[in-house]
Amino acid sequence: MKTPPLRVALLGFGTVGGSVARILVERPELGDRIQLTHIFNRGVARKRTDWVPASVTWTDSIDDLFASRPDAVVEVVGGLEPAGQWVRRALTQGAAVVTANKMLLAAHAPELLHLAATHGTQLRFEAAVAGGVPLIHGVREGLAGDRLLRVAGILNGTSNFVLSTMAGGDQQMGAVLDEARRLGYAEADPSADIDGDDAGAKLVVLAGIAFRRHLRLADIPRQSIRPIAAADFRYARRLGCTIRQIAMVETSGDRFHAWVGPALVPRSSPFGLNAGANNVVTISGHYGGENSFSGPGAGGPATAVAVVSDLMSLTQRTQDRGEEWPAGSVTAPPARPYYLRFVVHDHPGILAGIAAALARQGINLDAVLQEPGYPKDALPFVITVEPCEAAQLKAALDEIARFEFHAEPPLSLPMLFHPVA
Amino acid sequence: MKTPPLRVALLGFGTVGGSVARILVERPELGDRIQLTHIFNRGVARKRTDWVPASVTWTDSIDDLFASRPDAVVEVVGGLEPAGQWVRRALTQGAAVVTANKMLLAAHAPELLHLAATHGTQLRFEAAVAGGVPLIHGVREGLAGDRLLRVAGILNGTSNFVLSTMAGGDQQMGAVLDEARRLGYAEADPSADIDGDDAGAKLVVLAGIAFRRHLRLADIPRQSIRPIAAADFRYARRLGCTIRQIAMVETSGDRFHAWVGPALVPRSSPFGLNAGANNVVTISGHYGGENSFSGPGAGGPATAVAVVSDLMSLTQRTQDRGEEWPAGSVTAPPARPYYLRFVVHDHPGILAGIAAALARQGINLDAVLQEPGYPKDALPFVITVEPCEAAQLKAALDEIARFEFHAEPPLSLPMLFHPVA
Repeated sequence: MKTPPLRVALLGFGTVGGSVARILVERPELGDRIQLTHIFNRGVARKRTDWVPASVTWTDSIDDLFASRPDAVVEVVGGLEPAGQWVRRALTQGAAVVTANKMLLAAHAPELLHLAATHGTQLRFEAAVAGGVPLIHGVREGLAGDRLLRVAGILNGTSNFVLSTMAGGDQQMGAVLDEARRLGYAEADPSADIDGDDAGAKLVVLAGIAFRRHLRLADIPRQSIRPIAAADFRYARRLGCTIRQIAMVETSGDRFHAWVGPALVPRSSPFGLNAGANNVVTISGHYGGENSFSGPGAGGPATAVAVVSDLMSLTQRTQDRGEEWPAGSVTAPPARPYYLRFVVHDHPGILAGIAAALARQGINLDAVLQEPGYPKDALPFVITVEPCEAAQLKAALDEIARFEFHAEPPLSLPMLFHPVA
Repeated sequence: MKTPPLRVALLGFGTVGGSVARILVERPELGDRIQLTHIFNRGVARKRTDWVPASVTWTDSIDDLFASRPDAVVEVVGGLEPAGQWVRRALTQGAAVVTANKMLLAAHAPELLHLAATHGTQLRFEAAVAGGVPLIHGVREGLAGDRLLRVAGILNGTSNFVLSTMAGGDQQMGAVLDEARRLGYAEADPSADIDGDDAGAKLVVLAGIAFRRHLRLADIPRQSIRPIAAADFRYARRLGCTIRQIAMVETSGDRFHAWVGPALVPRSSPFGLNAGANNVVTISGHYGGENSFSGPGAGGPATAVAVVSDLMSLTQRTQDRGEEWPAGSVTAPPARPYYLRFVVHDHPGILAGIAAALARQGINLDAVLQEPGYPKDALPFVITVEPCEAAQLKAALDEIARFEFHAEPPLSLPMLFHPVA
């Protein structure tokens, strides 16, 4: 009793789509489980390549593709529309969908999961988070027995490349971003990466997997890495730390604290040690303690492995109980220590003014650091404070911001210690 | 249309079995998917605890347990027999089996997988390798789309505790083993851990998962960590390295190089950074590059998470195509650089003699290291050699062993550089 192969239509023949086709062609042993039948791309004539077998139909008509009644549709087009409309159409006609589209999932996962369940089919998205790192299988299946408490990770390769390069060479961000663009690690407009929207969307997907709750991307505070300067790495080193863009979500009763932004992490932690464009994610559970996963977070071939792995899961025709992600609500972070960096026109009384404002909010200073060698009219110095509530800190910083001595706006970064970091 | 819960019988109520029961009791939301019906243990009266619900039948009769026709049997008894006979009996009567028994799998996985397929049921064993680290789900499902090339890891927490503690404190192994026993990280007789049998059995299971081939444990060369001395860490540091027990398997055409033993690894590699009893595994694939997984390799609660995760997968009644592991054959390692450590009664001409023996096998010296402060009658020094075949090195060392100047037998360790380490 042989099951016929899964008939797959590929939506999009860019970097990831091309790599998916290549794996299926180069691994003929998969042929009795997965059969690529259609490739859709706008301007398909320009995309057609000779290494794809003649049995595959190339088309730029989405209607023709759906008329072929594929068993599964791989959506690697990206963007909210028309990808969203095509994913809905596939699920509605009972096709399984494998997608790498984190933005679509962050915006519409609950609706799409419901649509899949209603039509007795499946939505899979291993490729949507951390590219080739098998996080979703690892967490959803391998850690299903645990009660998870926290997921924290470096989910954006561009930001990690920028920050880990700055840490190594005392360069400013602009120069490193130029280098990242040259190497293909950053886009012409890197805003989505460095301002945290990309990592935020991935965090929404991870929170769904880990907690079966949907957090709205708009509710997750995101702090840009733009203000991080070479001086911050110098001060971070004095504290045994470095700086990384961290995305984290943790349970707090029936609510969630979620956040994306630059944080101080110990240099010897999994996050501090993660360099270049690699991703790393740590998962903490009530029973199992901390697990971590790391690997290439992006790139056509690695992401395509995740897509093909999802297709192979589909051939096992798992009777997934329709997964639902009810809305989860976001709450304030727990009390944490913070790193506060000021750049001032130096004159007597500055430290006294800042210390008094912090004291009025009941915030205790931990350390004051001032490295030599900076100009008096743009002098960076750092105060670290003992764990405090974000609201207290904000009140103190609002008061401090009104002082006239700032050469740059004050910067505050949470300090995350292991096991978080 | 509600699926009835999976009726589960637990074989063994030790550290892992007790933790499995505790998770099922403490997570009542799992109750509509998993129902614990029986607990078997010898001398059950002594084991019975009041936090297990009254609906669970305690028994010391294996026949009564099987007569209840469980849907799944959790085997956490350990050892080859009677565990093996019970696993066969469960599969034969169509029950799925979830086991943490690496020794049983290393010896009999092909037969047991075949038995499961024949009886239309499943054998699952996430808990058998790296305790709570969701390696098997991650590799088997999450990386199914890749063509894997190599699996390398630190799979034995005891050896890693011993070696990472020695690295930190310049202590000899005896003292550290005593401390490990006191902390519960080592058994009274730690032979299976430090001589590599435990890691070897786990490597057989990992090779099965990654390559769908069964390697015989007896065919996998295992080198003990016993000869590693404090001086080796001093020399390793000079080379930017440290020493860890590594288990690795890599493809070489249609054969496999597999090996377990102490190796020099860069201090800044995932292996060099792994301290204490943690496990870490790196998986290299043709398409996806290198992924790594790390976490607690042992302990009741972490291992129990793996067991419960496997039970939850079973409730999805995956139609696994009967997995087969045909026999794989083991071949020699690729050419590698080696670290050679000699302890000699010092006198002129020793280095010349060793160098000549190496030269006769065409082996090039890379570095000669001799640290001050050691006695002349038991002087440790180190030679590193450029990549060479294991057979050449063995021939040279056989010749060198016949010299009369040795105070201890020569030690050779492979030097594994990233991405392997």
